[in-house]
Amino acid sequence: MKGTMRAAMAHRLGAALTIEHLPIPTPGPGEVLVKIRASGVCHTDLHAVQGDWPVKPVLPFIPGHEGAGIVAETGAGVNHLRAGDAVGIAWLHDACGRCEYCISGWETLCERQRNSGYSVNGTFGEYAIASAAYVARLPSGCDFVGLAPILCAGVTSYKGIRETQARPGEWIVISGIGGLGHLAIQYAQAMGLHVAAIDVSESKLSLARSLGAEIVVNANDIGALEDIRRGTGGGAQGVLVTAVSPSAFTQALGMVRRKGTICLVGLPPGEFATPIFDVVLKRITLRGSIVGNRQDLAEAIDMAAYGKVQAMVEPYPLSQVNVVLDRLRVGGIEGRAVLDMSLAA
Amino acid sequence: MKGTMRAAMAHRLGAALTIEHLPIPTPGPGEVLVKIRASGVCHTDLHAVQGDWPVKPVLPFIPGHEGAGIVAETGAGVNHLRAGDAVGIAWLHDACGRCEYCISGWETLCERQRNSGYSVNGTFGEYAIASAAYVARLPSGCDFVGLAPILCAGVTSYKGIRETQARPGEWIVISGIGGLGHLAIQYAQAMGLHVAAIDVSESKLSLARSLGAEIVVNANDIGALEDIRRGTGGGAQGVLVTAVSPSAFTQALGMVRRKGTICLVGLPPGEFATPIFDVVLKRITLRGSIVGNRQDLAEAIDMAAYGKVQAMVEPYPLSQVNVVLDRLRVGGIEGRAVLDMSLAA
Amino acid sequence: MKGTMRAAMAHRLGAALTIEHLPIPTPGPGEVLVKIRASGVCHTDLHAVQGDWPVKPVLPFIPGHEGAGIVAETGAGVNHLRAGDAVGIAWLHDACGRCEYCISGWETLCERQRNSGYSVNGTFGEYAIASAAYVARLPSGCDFVGLAPILCAGVTSYKGIRETQARPGEWIVISGIGGLGHLAIQYAQAMGLHVAAIDVSESKLSLARSLGAEIVVNANDIGALEDIRRGTGGGAQGVLVTAVSPSAFTQALGMVRRKGTICLVGLPPGEFATPIFDVVLKRITLRGSIVGNRQDLAEAIDMAAYGKVQAMVEPYPLSQVNVVLDRLRVGGIEGRAVLDMSLAA
Amino acid sequence: MKGTMRAAMAHRLGAALTIEHLPIPTPGPGEVLVKIRASGVCHTDLHAVQGDWPVKPVLPFIPGHEGAGIVAETGAGVNHLRAGDAVGIAWLHDACGRCEYCISGWETLCERQRNSGYSVNGTFGEYAIASAAYVARLPSGCDFVGLAPILCAGVTSYKGIRETQARPGEWIVISGIGGLGHLAIQYAQAMGLHVAAIDVSESKLSLARSLGAEIVVNANDIGALEDIRRGTGGGAQGVLVTAVSPSAFTQALGMVRRKGTICLVGLPPGEFATPIFDVVLKRITLRGSIVGNRQDLAEAIDMAAYGKVQAMVEPYPLSQVNVVLDRLRVGGIEGRAVLDMSLAA
Repeated sequence: MKGTMRAAMAHRLGAALTIEHLPIPTPGPGEVLVKIRASGVCHTDLHAVQGDWPVKPVLPFIPGHEGAGIVAETGAGVNHLRAGDAVGIAWLHDACGRCEYCISGWETLCERQRNSGYSVNGTFGEYAIASAAYVARLPSGCDFVGLAPILCAGVTSYKGIRETQARPGEWIVISGIGGLGHLAIQYAQAMGLHVAAIDVSESKLSLARSLGAEIVVNANDIGALEDIRRGTGGGAQGVLVTAVSPSAFTQALGMVRRKGTICLVGLPPGEFATPIFDVVLKRITLRGSIVGNRQDLAEAIDMAAYGKVQAMVEPYPLSQVNVVLDRLRVGGIEGRAVLDMSLAA
Repeated sequence: MKGTMRAAMAHRLGAALTIEHLPIPTPGPGEVLVKIRASGVCHTDLHAVQGDWPVKPVLPFIPGHEGAGIVAETGAGVNHLRAGDAVGIAWLHDACGRCEYCISGWETLCERQRNSGYSVNGTFGEYAIASAAYVARLPSGCDFVGLAPILCAGVTSYKGIRETQARPGEWIVISGIGGLGHLAIQYAQAMGLHVAAIDVSESKLSLARSLGAEIVVNANDIGALEDIRRGTGGGAQGVLVTAVSPSAFTQALGMVRRKGTICLVGLPPGEFATPIFDVVLKRITLRGSIVGNRQDLAEAIDMAAYGKVQAMVEPYPLSQVNVVLDRLRVGGIEGRAVLDMSLAA
Repeated sequence: MKGTMRAAMAHRLGAALTIEHLPIPTPGPGEVLVKIRASGVCHTDLHAVQGDWPVKPVLPFIPGHEGAGIVAETGAGVNHLRAGDAVGIAWLHDACGRCEYCISGWETLCERQRNSGYSVNGTFGEYAIASAAYVARLPSGCDFVGLAPILCAGVTSYKGIRETQARPGEWIVISGIGGLGHLAIQYAQAMGLHVAAIDVSESKLSLARSLGAEIVVNANDIGALEDIRRGTGGGAQGVLVTAVSPSAFTQALGMVRRKGTICLVGLPPGEFATPIFDVVLKRITLRGSIVGNRQDLAEAIDMAAYGKVQAMVEPYPLSQVNVVLDRLRVGGIEGRAVLDMSLAA
Repeated sequence: MKGTMRAAMAHRLGAALTIEHLPIPTPGPGEVLVKIRASGVCHTDLHAVQGDWPVKPVLPFIPGHEGAGIVAETGAGVNHLRAGDAVGIAWLHDACGRCEYCISGWETLCERQRNSGYSVNGTFGEYAIASAAYVARLPSGCDFVGLAPILCAGVTSYKGIRETQARPGEWIVISGIGGLGHLAIQYAQAMGLHVAAIDVSESKLSLARSLGAEIVVNANDIGALEDIRRGTGGGAQGVLVTAVSPSAFTQALGMVRRKGTICLVGLPPGEFATPIFDVVLKRITLRGSIVGNRQDLAEAIDMAAYGKVQAMVEPYPLSQVNVVLDRLRVGGIEGRAVLDMSLAA
């Protein structure tokens, strides 16, 4: 496809992105060109742009890994997708397909994986290249802005809930009611769980209540943990920590039931102190979880497509991407910010 | 049964035990009187005698929860045991039998459980009372001294290995080659696992090698963790931490493979620092494990009875119990110390 | 408690029950006397009364194992229940508490179990004796008539669904929309599953649709199985067969997805033909399931108490018990027949 | 690579294979050319050649799917393999890599899979084309003749045992001690299981005993099933049926413990009669299993490479392939027949 596209480019770690006109890229063998309709903005994008993590992205690069759009062109050997198909581009650009993780349903742990908006260009632009075998299928005629956050925040929440192994009828605590947490509350209910929510912001707690959380507590209240324990009849079988403060991790241990599981899905730097005695005596499980594989993603999308989960989105034009990142930095986004490519600058 | 027995009694937390002559107790309904032939001495006995844990034992009490012996007398309503049956008395004296944990195979988490040598009198004596439904069956004509350590050290190791969910053909690291660790090496092999062993003592590492560990490293060596990672082809699927130092916990994170599980079975006071980024990105699971239920115990005994696992024991007369506790306090026991009631004082 | 009670007694296999006045029984140690408020009538009661199974009930006996009522009196040693507590009496009167099944959460497989209304007197009467440790807790002030069917039909459905291992977002087919099936549709939805229903009766299919089944097909239609396969995108991950005809079992194999599980919960006599090639090539799992343990029962009750599951009941006075059995014999009951002890004869 | 190779070709279903000289094929993108050193002969080859199954192979074709050899040449884009690498070619030539089965570790259920020696040419020749991402890695310098049978018989046995979910220390019955069964006995022991073996041939039962089976019974003996039940303390937790007679399936139900699993890995035509009452009351699981995915294959090879499993092979030159198939047809092979390409005609 000839022509140019607008995209937000990172040239220097820690600097603002610049909106540029670039040639529309051409899909190679096994790739597709996707016309991006909407792209969610994730904390990971902030970490990428700031260079927060040990392995840095290669400059310059286009961030973004919650891209929803339409196949514009297919590369050689791509037979299962056609121009016009609605697809999503997620964090996992591709993986080796052969390692012990790839062949056992854990491609998200592949050591040769490439990541959208990090090791390859992402979705903060009007077009993006995707690996045909790794895109998610979206329902035709879907709401791209509404579905974009499912591609990372959604699947991460959904998978994290599953990783707690809480069963229908049991309790889960969602700790942190932001971009991930507000979706997690909905996924958990769709999965038959009872939901308790904890945060430090009253407006987020109101949101939690309106989304169906049966117990809602402010983490700053004395007695918050006791309220959760009492309300859940002795602690929750699962705790999903989406909050990125070490104190949230410590609190989780005060809310989990014997034999329960605490699942961590945020990636804050630092460590948290784990009290050995309690973990052993109560047979507590602590587990990290990172996004989800393509099957998890398909399931997360399916639940959203069925209307069981709906992202609360704040749409922005691409030109406002730095404003969005600034707000994200200070926790100033309710739900999820989404770049809507149909909005005029 | 009339008459008196000798037993080691704790009258004051932190003080030496006193060997006393006491009336032989009478089994109540649902109880049996067991003539103790041998009783292992566990770190937990030390914690009990020292009053190390938040909930203290009620004074005075007889410690001990690795008691192997023979039913001497049965209480009312006990039909499935007879005088002469070989049985074992373990940490779980009894439990409520009705709570969510008891009815789902997790009686070790029952909040109303009573524990041998802690909340009820234990096995550091010539006789002990047991709950008939909770004793373990031992093979008739068995080696009581050799089997005693299986009743706590054995089952704790066995269950902890299972809780890592490492599968036959995969790797497990046994961290700490003491009373638990030297049994864990054997259980792991009986379960089809490849075993790596890590400790700071060269004599314990020699023991590990002689027991079949394929990789043996000294935790004090620079490059110890790298040796394990290389030898296991990228890290072990499971790590069982029997060592009680917080540094052992931290090391475990450097030896575990992506998607692997670290299981903690020791009960040292204190906390360990868990690095969030690694746990999340590599989908690590940390899990506590505490002894095992009666089914786990039966399985652990069965493997020992088949000769697949053999405790290395140092036998002592009951009168030497304080010497044993002192040696245990400074890590001076190889394998497991066992009070052999047939030894003259 | 002095006095007499009315109860329905079986004196001869295959004969009608007789309503008699009997002395109110006295609870022994570990037992409670329950004033029955309602008792569901189950196919198993029919099998018991007819003597259909290899092991026969001992005559004479009072059938019934879906008894909901109130503790009237407690026997010696019962501390966790008090007169006035609302409880349920289910199929599992008690079990040995010590075998490999009892201690691992599978007490329903205990070979020494006793069954209500079969090997001990059941709930078709104004009072019944229960084992205190095995009764289910009901919410105080509950609707006894509505909850009675949960005690067997409910828990059997709930456990059977779980045994298919279908996960939230996946499909389950409920085959047979009678006493079990109409509850199964509701449990499956409460557990986050998509539901397809199949039966031969149009009125039962209407009921299925009104309860939320998304796909509803008549088993007699040519193309019924193809409709299910297409509607579920290739077959259901789980199939719960509550229908008692061998043809229903065979159909299940035509509705299940690769890697899916068919769970059987009915107990018809006879065999069904299993085609080996399909089962192997598609890695199909066939599994039987029988009621549920106390934990399953608590969960099934909890979902009903939350209003997520509601039994459709036809109340009858105790005096009509033979009428009910006759109707059950010919499939003439919609939902569940319940003996309501508050109804005048 | 220029030149010609000898291979055994099927031109007509049911007819003898013909040994022909064919051009050595050229690997396309993502493919490798493998110089075959040894190829096992499996019952599936017989089914292929005879056209026994509903979907027929396309004629003409080279059978064989247990090919062990050395990479001779790599096609475009193959970077992880080099000429000289030892590899194995198994039943799964390749799969789509994108369907719900491929992305969740169940590629063996992919509906677009291609199979070696069935839908693509196989390993009964001096060279074969393989899909680079799907070949198994073999240890360099390995015994190709000894490892060939692991590629199908081995992995099928190994995976089938795992699918019974029997745990270390529990019992498994291996039913049928032929090409699969004699490997299954060894895998089961390597996995920590106790093994019972059943067959109708005394020579095969001797083999079973020599391989370490603890209980060995002749299926034709009255009391055979009772012997197994008694020897295993009430039935085996797992039963692996490698025998291809429907009667073997029926017997399995008489040997399995409550809550146990029977796994079927043979593909005989026909059906077997499943008694509903027993399956439900005892909560029996019946499950089919088909080969294994690449991870299972790597694990099966690893156990063999460690010397824990050794195939008993009868080597033949390629020219004797029809003799081998004839013997296989009448059950006349002990262990596994392997075409050894180094043997002169």
